[in-house]
Amino acid sequence: MTTTDPVYNLQALIRCPSVTPAEGGALSALEAMLVPLGFKVDRVLATDANTPDIENLYARIGSEGPHLMFAGHTDVVPVGDEAAWTHPPFAAKIANGELFGRGAVDMKGGIACFVAALARHIDRHGPPKGSVSLLITGDEEGPAVNGTIKLLKWAAAKDESWDACLVGEPTNPDALGDMIKIGRRGSLSGKITVHGVQGHAAYPHLADNPVRGILQLAEALMHPPFDHGTDDFQPSNMEVTTIDVGNPAVNIIPARATASFNIRFNDTWTADSLKTEIAGRLERSAAKGTLRPGRNPVRFELAWAERPSHVFLTRNDALIQSLSGAVEAVTGRTPKLSTTGGTSDARFIKDYCPVVEFGLVGQTMHMVDERVSVADLETLTRIYETFIERWFGHALT
Amino acid sequence: MTTTDPVYNLQALIRCPSVTPAEGGALSALEAMLVPLGFKVDRVLATDANTPDIENLYARIGSEGPHLMFAGHTDVVPVGDEAAWTHPPFAAKIANGELFGRGAVDMKGGIACFVAALARHIDRHGPPKGSVSLLITGDEEGPAVNGTIKLLKWAAAKDESWDACLVGEPTNPDALGDMIKIGRRGSLSGKITVHGVQGHAAYPHLADNPVRGILQLAEALMHPPFDHGTDDFQPSNMEVTTIDVGNPAVNIIPARATASFNIRFNDTWTADSLKTEIAGRLERSAAKGTLRPGRNPVRFELAWAERPSHVFLTRNDALIQSLSGAVEAVTGRTPKLSTTGGTSDARFIKDYCPVVEFGLVGQTMHMVDERVSVADLETLTRIYETFIERWFGHALT
Repeated sequence: MTTTDPVYNLQALIRCPSVTPAEGGALSALEAMLVPLGFKVDRVLATDANTPDIENLYARIGSEGPHLMFAGHTDVVPVGDEAAWTHPPFAAKIANGELFGRGAVDMKGGIACFVAALARHIDRHGPPKGSVSLLITGDEEGPAVNGTIKLLKWAAAKDESWDACLVGEPTNPDALGDMIKIGRRGSLSGKITVHGVQGHAAYPHLADNPVRGILQLAEALMHPPFDHGTDDFQPSNMEVTTIDVGNPAVNIIPARATASFNIRFNDTWTADSLKTEIAGRLERSAAKGTLRPGRNPVRFELAWAERPSHVFLTRNDALIQSLSGAVEAVTGRTPKLSTTGGTSDARFIKDYCPVVEFGLVGQTMHMVDERVSVADLETLTRIYETFIERWFGHALT
Repeated sequence: MTTTDPVYNLQALIRCPSVTPAEGGALSALEAMLVPLGFKVDRVLATDANTPDIENLYARIGSEGPHLMFAGHTDVVPVGDEAAWTHPPFAAKIANGELFGRGAVDMKGGIACFVAALARHIDRHGPPKGSVSLLITGDEEGPAVNGTIKLLKWAAAKDESWDACLVGEPTNPDALGDMIKIGRRGSLSGKITVHGVQGHAAYPHLADNPVRGILQLAEALMHPPFDHGTDDFQPSNMEVTTIDVGNPAVNIIPARATASFNIRFNDTWTADSLKTEIAGRLERSAAKGTLRPGRNPVRFELAWAERPSHVFLTRNDALIQSLSGAVEAVTGRTPKLSTTGGTSDARFIKDYCPVVEFGLVGQTMHMVDERVSVADLETLTRIYETFIERWFGHALT
């Protein structure tokens, strides 16, 4: 059975141009791999008034517990400047021991290896002693409205439940075995609008320049630091991502200035406690007024972006030790248990079962010439196969 | 002769819709007033590759010195929301003792009064004992490229020279007689671009957020104050007029941020010494780097806007005392000799002869329902007539 070969699986997946929101044949290719292995496959279309319709896939083999979920996505980011690619982004060309293509590491490669690992496991031991599910979305790189979050709800409504989940995102910064992610920081975004009084630059006493206010509020957002990190997390980090006034006339004092910000926060905070802290900083700074003599308090509005990502940390020895042990057994390296980086669909899954993340090396993700070494595909397949054995061994004892 | 009536003159001028760059008939109306008084009138078209063609007017009566120039403009700013006007902006309607219309105070009113004052002077005394010129542009409210600056050059090339100039801009904040302008601050504008490194908000160590740099440089522009004012001028004032990043993605650290600024500066500075001071502030601040640990110096560019306006102060007793004495004689009030406010075409004229400015009350200039009290038109005409008499009396002794 060729699905034991991760290279074969990955080439089949890369050749499907599944740039979000297009399915591009990728889920059908995956279904064609899973059905012969004994999986029951459901294709789940999710729709929404404001975002594109998305095809998703849920596949399960086995009907009893323990129940292991593998989660991921077949959608990929756009190719960027196609002419700049050394090999066409959907050709899955192998050159000098590397397989080129959009999604090679993020994350068709992870799916290809997990399918190969399962196929080898079934070859050697027969069907898993319990259940394995694949929960695969086509909307991880897009708005993430019609993806994992809806697919989890759909499955839970059919009484699906899981004991643990492995997300196959590329977690290793430099080499396979570097890093398992056992949690993620939260992410909270907001926008500040400062209202001034428009006027002529020659008559500043008749105007109130909102640029002064936005500078002061931005300063209050950035200093002092929100925390200095915790045992499990790096320090929370605030970035003011844009400031905009849009005043083309150099002799005019503008009426309005806006700033947007994003903070990646650790377990010192909840999204709610952080909102309170940020609003408090802004209100205290605004109440002081700008340095301009005789000026009133800064008039501002604060608007929060919808749906903050909540911080989470997985503490589940069976899951973490099975995976960490598998990495060590195959690579001889002890992976760092990390909570760094951006958000992932693990933020949705953590509400259903313990979740960790481990996949390929992420260096070329989202770039021109995204590629994976063929050797890494084999190594990751062996790690995943070892993990499956160890997790079921652990869970069944 | 009806040109002795400033109301008649002003109604004729307002009914010409001379929104910059349109002549709108206003210069022809003025020419029709001046020719019967004995003026030789030249219409001067000024052109330029990048800005609209502009009609200007230069008129002179007399051929000997002393030579007094009256300078002004017949172009007006747009009407804004025409439906919001109580009376149509080009109808020159009189209601409750006020004459409504675009340009009523800025500054067709000043021209109308000066022409009336001259007509009365000629009625009473015959032609001036010397020369009087009107230097009237149609490009004061626009780019000011094809206006006063070119008209002065045109006249100078024909060997015109002047002993003094009165600009008829509206100089009084509240009531006729408040304020004569005897100088103006300079104006200097520039733009700063800070270059960062774009990246994902979750990986700030791989990026360099230019918003931090632009905030720091803006702070260095604003503090400390540039000076605390001089005997003749208020303190120099810096306004950051816009900051722009234009980053729509809250999870992206942007690559670039820009800020523009404008400083109105007093005689502590020249445009060149101020450029040196500003560049020095920015370079010293940038060299410190942002507060972000381990960051390199802020990478920025500074670009100066073309053609700064230079600061000037007129010290000419004959001119200032003639005008101030005329204001006192007619209104009983002692005008403040001021250097406040924005730039005017006086900044060009000061290179040719001493220049002061006095006109109507500016409160409604550039606004909907721009208007002037009919009583003020008569008072200003009497002030101008008294000024003409006193200035020639002073100059001839």
